[in-house]
Amino acid sequence: MDFSRLKKPVFIIDKPKALRNLERMAQKARESGVSLRPHVKTHQSAGVAAWLRDFGISRLSVSSVDMAAYFLAAGWRDLLITVPVNVHQIPDIDRLAAEATVHILVESARMAAEISSKVTRPLNVWIEVDTGYHRTGIAADRHEDMIEVASIIARDPNLRLRGLLGHDGQAYCAEGPAGVRAVFESSLRSHRGALEALGAAGFPDLRLSIGDTPTCSLVGSFPAPVAEIRPGNFLFYDLTQLAVGACSEDDIAATVACPVIAKYPQRREIVLYGGGVHISKEALRTASGRTSYGSVARLCGNQGRWTASVPGVSLSSLSQEQGTVSGPDEFIASVGIGESLAVLPVHSCLTANLHPAYFVEGEGWLTKFHL
Amino acid sequence: MDFSRLKKPVFIIDKPKALRNLERMAQKARESGVSLRPHVKTHQSAGVAAWLRDFGISRLSVSSVDMAAYFLAAGWRDLLITVPVNVHQIPDIDRLAAEATVHILVESARMAAEISSKVTRPLNVWIEVDTGYHRTGIAADRHEDMIEVASIIARDPNLRLRGLLGHDGQAYCAEGPAGVRAVFESSLRSHRGALEALGAAGFPDLRLSIGDTPTCSLVGSFPAPVAEIRPGNFLFYDLTQLAVGACSEDDIAATVACPVIAKYPQRREIVLYGGGVHISKEALRTASGRTSYGSVARLCGNQGRWTASVPGVSLSSLSQEQGTVSGPDEFIASVGIGESLAVLPVHSCLTANLHPAYFVEGEGWLTKFHL
Repeated sequence: MDFSRLKKPVFIIDKPKALRNLERMAQKARESGVSLRPHVKTHQSAGVAAWLRDFGISRLSVSSVDMAAYFLAAGWRDLLITVPVNVHQIPDIDRLAAEATVHILVESARMAAEISSKVTRPLNVWIEVDTGYHRTGIAADRHEDMIEVASIIARDPNLRLRGLLGHDGQAYCAEGPAGVRAVFESSLRSHRGALEALGAAGFPDLRLSIGDTPTCSLVGSFPAPVAEIRPGNFLFYDLTQLAVGACSEDDIAATVACPVIAKYPQRREIVLYGGGVHISKEALRTASGRTSYGSVARLCGNQGRWTASVPGVSLSSLSQEQGTVSGPDEFIASVGIGESLAVLPVHSCLTANLHPAYFVEGEGWLTKFHL
Repeated sequence: MDFSRLKKPVFIIDKPKALRNLERMAQKARESGVSLRPHVKTHQSAGVAAWLRDFGISRLSVSSVDMAAYFLAAGWRDLLITVPVNVHQIPDIDRLAAEATVHILVESARMAAEISSKVTRPLNVWIEVDTGYHRTGIAADRHEDMIEVASIIARDPNLRLRGLLGHDGQAYCAEGPAGVRAVFESSLRSHRGALEALGAAGFPDLRLSIGDTPTCSLVGSFPAPVAEIRPGNFLFYDLTQLAVGACSEDDIAATVACPVIAKYPQRREIVLYGGGVHISKEALRTASGRTSYGSVARLCGNQGRWTASVPGVSLSSLSQEQGTVSGPDEFIASVGIGESLAVLPVHSCLTANLHPAYFVEGEGWLTKFHL
């Protein structure tokens, strides 16, 4: 693709970088003897998911029933839906279970009973534990609630209780790598306590599935009882992961190439064709306290690669279709109208979600699931 | 639609409210003798745009060349592209100009010359003036630059110089209605000065096109030399417009209905199936200093209408597919799993952009343009 003549913003994946991120995570999983079930909400693309097969991956995490159906149609036969079940979608999940090994999570006795009353096919169930993120899940110390849910599941011959599932989203707010590891240790203690209580109540041999890219990237190995990890973002990484210390900038494997449409040297600004509908409004605060919607790099020729981000240059403001890049004089002077710049995303999952397809050197356009 | 049994989030338009917003703006335009050229980037839908025809509207503003092509295919024949031209799309614009009256904006002599060297068909050109938003446009006091651009346009028989165009985006940061009106007055003075300078330089009878919903909503009438207004968001409004005083909450004509998937009374929280991919991460700071991704209302039966927002209740956190609603005990207790809540958007344009279709009572699903 001729990036010096782009008609509109293009989401580019640097496949060698993505494969390197994948190899690193797959190797860590192998060494720890845990299963890697990547979360494909990051890219939502069957074409990208196909890369996983070469690493022996056959199980996926998805974030909606429709996304599960999309990956089922693409040939994936073991799918974990990582969001609490919407009661009105139980019949749809039941239908999926006729064609694939489907896993769901449950976080209340009420929903466990509701699901039990409606499913007609074998379904794998995980009890979601809240280890401190406080989004969904049974609070980690409420062992009685978990036992109640486990009992409801155990009574239904269609339901198979697989174990506990956690997502340490609080790792995103941790203070650097040491903070992330402390989150993991604390979460692991909570899970162990819960598994012990469940074992004592007659539910032994349960597994533990954990997720989130900061933890999975920063922990050296996954001790028992971890049986499965579900990171998603690690395939692309982004500026949020960089800020928490989960990756280096060189690991970031996705960018949005945006044509330059206007220059304002007096304001030290450049305007890109590329706005909130291409990049998303997720923002970070820079070291100097400014809002940044992305770092900015230069594209390297037409191979879908890019340089390190340019120091002092960032996407400082974002309209629906346009973005304003601020930077020092010499950078502004060096950029020409019509050339394209690479915007490194703050949150690659939300940026990827906005694009109907991704450009990958050597593979062309990869299409994806869309709402 | 049975909103008590939603499978997934639905973007709903309250058509009677949208038509009321439209009638108010159309009447103000009529009374001022200016043309209303609504910006359809807010909805990007031919079905919604069809409502405009009953108000005598035949001209649209769009924010990309592809969006222009979409509305051209839907039968619209007068289209203004409100973003500076990407030099690599000039041939596409030229092709559009074969089938419609196409308007573009120019903000530098360099781009004016570039366009002049490439177009082969009649094209309407507006000089974009920066009255203080500092996104794009020639700084309002640089009359010589405008005259230079006007001269380049005048030399090309295909290009027709129509006038000056401004977008007072700084109105969004103004202090309430009085602040917005002050922005308008200041901007009007700048435009008048520029038109005078252009008139003296041999470019008389130029028109003035202005846009932005806060100004168009809060100004009582549009004095000369305003000839055209281009608000877009006013059709739906949203919490940002409410905060700046451009609308009442009752004017907000769009919401996202989201099923309740989990309840955490101890945390005073409810979790919705509805996340950043359905609502967008645009946020506001509430009076109490908290981040809000939306206000929350109840749906009224199945007619696609909703109540006033519930006091003290807001969407306090947003993941990719899930949102957390915080509120007082009695509210949390009153909401049942499986029912749907209405989220009033912070920025309706970005929220609408995420949905492939909108539900409108009496019309069903309206489809739209997508990247």
